[in-house]
Amino acid sequence: MNNDTICAPATPAGGALSIIRVSGSGAIPAVDALFRAVNGQPLASRAGYSLSYGTLQTDEGETIDDVVVSLFRAPRSYTGEDSVEITCHGSRYIINKVLEELVRCGCRMARAGEFTERAFLNGKMDLSQAEAVADLIASSNRATHQLALSQLRGQFSSELVTLREQLLHLTTLLELELDFSDHEDLEFADRSELLSLAQTIYEHITQLARSFEIGQALKQGIPVAIVGKTNVGKSTLLNRLLRDDRAIVSDVHGTTRDTIEDTIDLRGITFRFIDTAGIRQTSDEVEQIGISRTYSAIDKARIVLWLIDEMPTEAEIMDITSRCEGRTIIPVWNKADIRFVCCSNIASLPVIPISAKTGQGLSALESAILAAADIPEISANDVIVTNIRHFEALTHAQGNLQRVLVGLHRNISGDLISEDLRLVLSDLSEITGGLITSQETLSNIFSHFCVGK
Amino acid sequence: MNNDTICAPATPAGGALSIIRVSGSGAIPAVDALFRAVNGQPLASRAGYSLSYGTLQTDEGETIDDVVVSLFRAPRSYTGEDSVEITCHGSRYIINKVLEELVRCGCRMARAGEFTERAFLNGKMDLSQAEAVADLIASSNRATHQLALSQLRGQFSSELVTLREQLLHLTTLLELELDFSDHEDLEFADRSELLSLAQTIYEHITQLARSFEIGQALKQGIPVAIVGKTNVGKSTLLNRLLRDDRAIVSDVHGTTRDTIEDTIDLRGITFRFIDTAGIRQTSDEVEQIGISRTYSAIDKARIVLWLIDEMPTEAEIMDITSRCEGRTIIPVWNKADIRFVCCSNIASLPVIPISAKTGQGLSALESAILAAADIPEISANDVIVTNIRHFEALTHAQGNLQRVLVGLHRNISGDLISEDLRLVLSDLSEITGGLITSQETLSNIFSHFCVGK
Repeated sequence: MNNDTICAPATPAGGALSIIRVSGSGAIPAVDALFRAVNGQPLASRAGYSLSYGTLQTDEGETIDDVVVSLFRAPRSYTGEDSVEITCHGSRYIINKVLEELVRCGCRMARAGEFTERAFLNGKMDLSQAEAVADLIASSNRATHQLALSQLRGQFSSELVTLREQLLHLTTLLELELDFSDHEDLEFADRSELLSLAQTIYEHITQLARSFEIGQALKQGIPVAIVGKTNVGKSTLLNRLLRDDRAIVSDVHGTTRDTIEDTIDLRGITFRFIDTAGIRQTSDEVEQIGISRTYSAIDKARIVLWLIDEMPTEAEIMDITSRCEGRTIIPVWNKADIRFVCCSNIASLPVIPISAKTGQGLSALESAILAAADIPEISANDVIVTNIRHFEALTHAQGNLQRVLVGLHRNISGDLISEDLRLVLSDLSEITGGLITSQETLSNIFSHFCVGK
Repeated sequence: MNNDTICAPATPAGGALSIIRVSGSGAIPAVDALFRAVNGQPLASRAGYSLSYGTLQTDEGETIDDVVVSLFRAPRSYTGEDSVEITCHGSRYIINKVLEELVRCGCRMARAGEFTERAFLNGKMDLSQAEAVADLIASSNRATHQLALSQLRGQFSSELVTLREQLLHLTTLLELELDFSDHEDLEFADRSELLSLAQTIYEHITQLARSFEIGQALKQGIPVAIVGKTNVGKSTLLNRLLRDDRAIVSDVHGTTRDTIEDTIDLRGITFRFIDTAGIRQTSDEVEQIGISRTYSAIDKARIVLWLIDEMPTEAEIMDITSRCEGRTIIPVWNKADIRFVCCSNIASLPVIPISAKTGQGLSALESAILAAADIPEISANDVIVTNIRHFEALTHAQGNLQRVLVGLHRNISGDLISEDLRLVLSDLSEITGGLITSQETLSNIFSHFCVGK
């Protein structure tokens, strides 16, 4: 399979330029069959990491486009194979024509993710790194970007290597114990020592598995509900929050084509305002409907902004606090520029005075939202599990390691414990795609990639 | 203005990869401020036409992405300036972050078309070539692609150079006549010779101006109407024509995201089926409404497919032929697999028997449509005017040259004729953007480009 030469567009059509990727042992001859460099040099005679300018021509000598061609020679390329990237004009007609000609010259269209799959199969990256490539492309805020980058650069992989070494050490100690258990004069690590080592590994795995909750929150955005009586200024506040969160660059260069739907980024973390459209309408509707919508928003939220403009009654406080159990409530006093009569706390929660209209108090509110999210500052060195496949493997590993702990505790025979340890090792190697990755797993992972990656 | 260093994304976000372009005297230092090559070499130390692999980092040392950087040194670049193209992952977050950092390092966001505008201002291409870049990106079929490529490669420009030389020659001859008109012993080209030269130029300009009709047809697609009684199979025929025209590659690689709306490409020329949605509905509606819609389709069409499945009456023939004056009618006998009783001609037009259901006769029909379009085979050497700005300049030139012809004919004084010749020269130089191109004209042209081109 790996002998095929594959090609695919790596950029969407419709821009000024497009990149078409070609990879495999036939990549250089295939492109040379179409490419006429202005300096007359075929790619075959050029070194890797060089650029050539010229035209692409069909078999019949018809010019397709003026192009710049980037040459990468194995193994110094993304896939580890000979690779060529053709930068042509971004017309769909040209892209299709170039691909047609490449297919005529012996290439085949790449499947989704096949370039990255080859990078994995050729040992350029492990499976968790390959998956990080897709995450990196999909990343939409600083936190998810940093996490994807961390994973791509192998931070997660190297933690797994450490875990693997510790597990192998534990296995060795157990096997020593087995092999030489008759030799009374030899000293072994006693069970309590093995137990303590296993316990350390277990805690490390548990910590990784637990980080998935943060990973998910970062990936999907932290759900926030704005609740309060009608006309208290919920939609004004939402609009104010959304308006404050427009990157300067986005406005200028016109790349931001998708509408950003009721999410804001605060210091690189995305907050998602749930069901706010419904809440927004309530100000024009009878209050009963509004209240029921508000409650359903609370159910989905992790943070609740409780907007007030007068001191709530004891009954109202009771109602909100009971409805919001397990969520962080932030009482927000709106229209504070007009009226603010409040003790500093409501139900022992500090009240934040703002004016959604003037923007007063907004930065204090944003800090409070960030604090409520309780997400650590993410850097590209942090390991936080964001992938459900990894989370599942870690959960399996936890289960199997739990049995190891019980076994060590109960003084069960070492060979039974070794069996469970092997399962833990296999669980972890599934993440990086170590020895035994089925074609099914690979297809499942890479089919979610875009074409050209 | 040209001292600014500009940056912009050259590809849409959302693909595997993205290209960010940087151009200007500060391009290399700006990228060097962010780029850490794995081999440790800054771009400043590298030759043009080289690739470097490394990471982009913010001021605070935070990694943005792993990137490949293409270096082009002035004047051997698209703009003629020092230029860098950063190939990063196709995430909007990364693209924005890179642009933000470039702006921090002294670049500014490019206006639409500004890279090509600089290529023009730096003498890398003339204005008609610059406009061809936008046409090339927009080209959606072989014919428009070939025309844009022809224009980009300067075929049109070189015809204009020829015309200019001939006009200058004519001016010189006229001025000689003026300067030495007292010297009776000198021989000048007589007026008939000048007239013949002016006539040749006029014909050349007229031919170019006339080609605009073909250019427009190719650019917008040739309008075709399918007319006929209800239930004669109009929508079946349309669907059959549309279905036959799906490129193989488009189906495979998934780049074709736009739906192709009722147009077909036959040998690289686009045919556009007008108002066919209306016609399609008529088969379910009372015939009267259908007929009025059909007539309005005929008015917009250049070719009319007259679909029949029985011999039309004399009155019907009269009706159709009078309605279709100035259009090419192709009588098409549908359901010919079931019944075909027809002389070979109707109203001296050859009848094409087909079965829209089985596909029988379809290729004969396509050939007839192509023949009716009467468009010459287009190659990248052909000059056909596709741009309305060029057409207008040529029309002005025609008018002014007409006055030259009349002046020569009527033996009007040479200095008056020279004045008109200068106007012709100025008309033509507007196309290529010779000496006198106003900032307004430039802004008008380049503002229609996409950003990053």
